[in-house]
Order: sequence, then structure tokens, then C-alpha cells
Amino acid sequence: MKSIDVCVSPDLMHLYPVDGKSVVVVDILRATSSMVTAFAHGVKSIYPVAKLDDCRAMKSKGYLIAGEREGEKVADFDLGNSPFEYMAPELRGKQIALTTTNGTQAIAKSLGATEIIIGAFLNLSAVADHLINSNNDILVVCAGWKGKVNLEDTVFAGALVDKLSGKFTPACDAPLAAKHLYTSAKTDLIGFLNESSHVKRLNKLNIHDDMKFCCTIDEYRVVPVLVNGHLAVKD
Amino acid sequence: MKSIDVCVSPDLMHLYPVDGKSVVVVDILRATSSMVTAFAHGVKSIYPVAKLDDCRAMKSKGYLIAGEREGEKVADFDLGNSPFEYMAPELRGKQIALTTTNGTQAIAKSLGATEIIIGAFLNLSAVADHLINSNNDILVVCAGWKGKVNLEDTVFAGALVDKLSGKFTPACDAPLAAKHLYTSAKTDLIGFLNESSHVKRLNKLNIHDDMKFCCTIDEYRVVPVLVNGHLAVKD
Repeated sequence: MKSIDVCVSPDLMHLYPVDGKSVVVVDILRATSSMVTAFAHGVKSIYPVAKLDDCRAMKSKGYLIAGEREGEKVADFDLGNSPFEYMAPELRGKQIALTTTNGTQAIAKSLGATEIIIGAFLNLSAVADHLINSNNDILVVCAGWKGKVNLEDTVFAGALVDKLSGKFTPACDAPLAAKHLYTSAKTDLIGFLNESSHVKRLNKLNIHDDMKFCCTIDEYRVVPVLVNGHLAVKD
Repeated sequence: MKSIDVCVSPDLMHLYPVDGKSVVVVDILRATSSMVTAFAHGVKSIYPVAKLDDCRAMKSKGYLIAGEREGEKVADFDLGNSPFEYMAPELRGKQIALTTTNGTQAIAKSLGATEIIIGAFLNLSAVADHLINSNNDILVVCAGWKGKVNLEDTVFAGALVDKLSGKFTPACDAPLAAKHLYTSAKTDLIGFLNESSHVKRLNKLNIHDDMKFCCTIDEYRVVPVLVNGHLAVKD
């Protein structure tokens, strides 16, 4: 049986070879939730960029530029990091360059994998089905918060381990720990995450609705895949 | 209120400044459990050493030499890493040099803290009382397994967060996650840890009794403290 592993922080990626693996990058609040939402609403592609200036430079190439730092939209950018912004009809068919505090860095550290896909509660079952179909060993890469473990990404990893149990075997203790966290969280995901440090950060920014939406399971069926540095969904 | 934080892997220690903190090093299976047992049975001091050869060199200085690699006793050493070995009456008053796969490395990365103490389920309440008395910000450093998160050390961290709740506030999500894991584990700690990868490793070595003993809560009252590179307990 193929295995599923969980890297709880991008700062531990040196311990997890990605070669031959399907990597699922997750940054529930809010990068990967926003990406999934964008594709579900017809965005053509998303180009993840680590640095603000590199993102800004894409504007002249016809991209919309999007991103946040410390949870807040960058002032001169077209879009921030709220999933609700990515539902706008005028984004249909558009290309977006996106930089976020943690999410885009997690993608950068996953390069070299057989495939890199984007996971969120919003597309949980679609991601699970995709992984069953790919049938590679799986590594879930939690974006975390500036290298530290966070609750929401680890709980998502646990939800995926749980959903794939019987089909993929936990590679070590991290997927087991994540699954236990999910078990504790699943009956009241929003309540469980309300105590997390990043949720408190977001609540200060008055974006509690973002958090609630990001906890919606299986709202969409899209699975964004990284191809030549750009995220897109298959037609 | 002072805070309590949890570093789930020594490979994340660059994110956790130790200055001004009480650091609790934990390696439940089995380094810190064995250390606590040794002091409870009258060992005078333990000198934690990272490398096998450095440990071996202490033999000529009158130390007993102790250690394991990959869970097994080093062939020419006096002692391995089973807590039961450290109950021997002939160890009373002796100095021991000890090297282990993960535990001694976690201590090395904690140097610079206001104090470094040794925690295990065996001395949980004594550690909690000591920390309340010291009243510094607390960092629990989980030894993990070769940089990866493990269940047993994280569950111990959660037990400590739980025991100190109301007196020390969780610094970020890692202590919250650890506390949730402990809540899931506490009614059947041995059963919970039986699925952990290191326990499976130990069971292969026929040392299930070690694991059961290491899960005993509050067997001892000793709190080993690092002073000038040596662990000892106050008289």
C-alpha cells in the first residue's frame, strides 16, 4: 500500500524527500482556500510567487497581482487573500500572480515532486479522489505560520489522512497526530479553530466570515495542479 | 501571565529563542524517562554527550558510559537506554555519560536558556511544580525522531500544557495542538501510543515493558536540572 505523510512545517521539508510523491500543499487560512475558490469561479491560472516585487513585476505582463503580508492585502495590489474576492465574475479567464506569507513558500519547497496539488477543506473530497487516482506516495505540506505549526493546516492534513485510511498507510507519527487532531475537531471545526492563533489574528482584521467559509467542506470539486510553475485545473 | 510554548522537533529550534526561558527537554522513549529513573535511584550526575566517541572517552575519567543508537544499546557501553537498567543499586552515587539518538541533541539545542530541566511522564507533576516556582516563560522541546514529530513527546508536552493551564498561557498553536492530543490520549495512554512508529520500533526490540513503564505518571518527584553541562538534582 502507498503511504501518506504529513510535514507540519515548511521548515521541516529537508526531512521529507518529494521525489516520486504527490504533494498536497495546504494553507487553509487563506491562500489555498482562495486558490480553490478562484478556480471554481473560472480563473484561468495562478502563478505563485515568493516575493512581493516579483509579484508586482507580473502586472506589466497582463496578470492581476494578488497577495497579503501579515494577513492584510498589499496596498497597491489588485486582490488580497480573501476567498470572497476570488468569486468576482470579472476574474473569469484571468491570470493571477499571487504571493502570500506562507502558502507560496510551501509550494516553492515542494518543487521536484511528481505532482503538486492544492488542498483545502473546500475541495477535500476532490483532492482525495485525485490522490487515489494518482496512486503515488503522498506528502501533505502544511504551510503553517512563519515556520511554526498551526492548527488549521494540521487538522486539514488529518482530514485527508482520515479520508484515505485503508487506501494509504500513515508513514510515521505526524499523520497519526494530525488524524487525532481532526477527530477532535470534526464535530465543530469552526469552534475548534476559533482558539487558533491565526484565527485570532484574522478576527482582529474582521474577517471571521473568511474563516467560516474556509471551513466549508467539499464546496467545490476543482483540484489545482502546478504545471510549469503555474497552477491550473484540467479542463 | 507567563507563556508556555512547544517546539515539536529539534529541527524547528531556530524559531524558538530560549533566552529567559525554562526549557523542558522531553524524550519519553526513552532518554528522559531513563534519566529521571536514574536520579530517582540515586545516580549523582548525568553528562549528556552528542557523539558516541565523546561518550566513550569519558570512561577513562571515571564515568559509566551509556547510550543507544537506533534504539539499541551500544555494544561496548556499560548501559543502554532502558529505564530498568537505571534502577540498579550499584549506580547510586555514580557519574554517567549518556548519548542517545535524539535526547542529547535536544539538550544541545536548548543551551542558553535560563534553565534546562528534564521531563517525562514519570516526573510530570514535579516538573509542573518546579516550573510554577521558577515562573519563567516555558518552552517544551520535544526530542522527536531524527527531526520528525513523534506522538509520545508531543503528548507529554500536551500533558504539561494541560497541567499548567490557568497559570501559563499557550504561546501559539503548537501547545494547543499538543493539549488536544493529550486529551485524546489520556484515558488510555499506552493504547494511544501503541500505534506510534517508535513504539512499534521498540516492540520489535522486545521492550514493550519499557514503554509501559515510561507511561507511568508521577512515579518520581525528582527534577533533573542542567548545571555546567551536567544534569543533577538538588539535594
